[in-house]
Amino acid sequence: MSSRPAALEKLIAEFTKLPGIGPKAAERMVFHLLARPPEATDELTKAIAALREQIVRCSVCGTFDTQSPCATCSDRDRDATIICVVAEPSDIRAIEKTGEFKGRYHVLHGLLNPVEGITADDLSIQPLLDRVANDGVREVILALNPTVEGEATALYLKKALLPGRGRVTKLARGLPVGAEVDYADEITLGDALKGRREMS
Amino acid sequence: MSSRPAALEKLIAEFTKLPGIGPKAAERMVFHLLARPPEATDELTKAIAALREQIVRCSVCGTFDTQSPCATCSDRDRDATIICVVAEPSDIRAIEKTGEFKGRYHVLHGLLNPVEGITADDLSIQPLLDRVANDGVREVILALNPTVEGEATALYLKKALLPGRGRVTKLARGLPVGAEVDYADEITLGDALKGRREMS
Repeated sequence: MSSRPAALEKLIAEFTKLPGIGPKAAERMVFHLLARPPEATDELTKAIAALREQIVRCSVCGTFDTQSPCATCSDRDRDATIICVVAEPSDIRAIEKTGEFKGRYHVLHGLLNPVEGITADDLSIQPLLDRVANDGVREVILALNPTVEGEATALYLKKALLPGRGRVTKLARGLPVGAEVDYADEITLGDALKGRREMS
Repeated sequence: MSSRPAALEKLIAEFTKLPGIGPKAAERMVFHLLARPPEATDELTKAIAALREQIVRCSVCGTFDTQSPCATCSDRDRDATIICVVAEPSDIRAIEKTGEFKGRYHVLHGLLNPVEGITADDLSIQPLLDRVANDGVREVILALNPTVEGEATALYLKKALLPGRGRVTKLARGLPVGAEVDYADEITLGDALKGRREMS
């Protein structure tokens, strides 16, 4: 019992490749699978296989769907002249939940990060520039995380998109609902002040 | 894009069945798999299948190994008259790392937990009592988490084992209250083993 069986070590190694999963969490997941009936494990492997078989990357916006172009890019009721740029496909769902956006999306699949060696060539930036150049886009909304990486990516895109005819906007910064002025950080509070709006 | 594809929802649901994985973490894992080449996903499904094919539960102690009885239970150099009782198979590895224990193990596969409806019948307690009754066991070491559930299980086992001839000990309180055996460092856990005390 000085070393663990290879099949166990192998699956722990595979699980630790997933985002946010450390060796301890992976070990718990593996022992959990062993404690469950074999059918439960079959369900998991089948679901992974089905994912690969049924889900494709949209050739237009880069999100994942059962079809390419995806449902959103195929929807003629959605305004193709406004593109909301997000870092990850999961961001689209968050924006859809607001019900405030009826345009199209573009997924960068990451953010610029010099520390981790992620450059513009690693992101889906050229396809975005092509869409803007060819599809008569009026506005590009940069819905990126208000982080160092998000800001750097937004600045990069602003410069790259400048020669175009459309507007480039980004999400408003300010206090989130339920926040307290007292506890807000200086940058957020400063942004909230600069972006203050007339009360109607 | 108002709802996600079924294949995506299904795998997210499967991942959230794993311990410590919430809906957001599961979603990240799924999108991570989609972003990786298909071969990477094949590696994962193969590793899960190999786990089920190659790993069995030891008929003696209840741990998971490539053989039953497991390597530890088959090792004649290990003292069969001292049994270290643990809650989970992963606890064995932590104790083995200390190098302080040369006996055998017994895995309960859980701890008593009335709130979650886990009773003595749900744990591998009767097989432990049988081993103690039949194998001339001199000492049972209860290496359970110093938590409410761990203490309750230790008390239950102490009473159930009382009619036997051997000693029942538990790990010294070298472990801080609220900690988990699984996460303890080798020295602390080794000290706790050496300082184990007779239950009164």
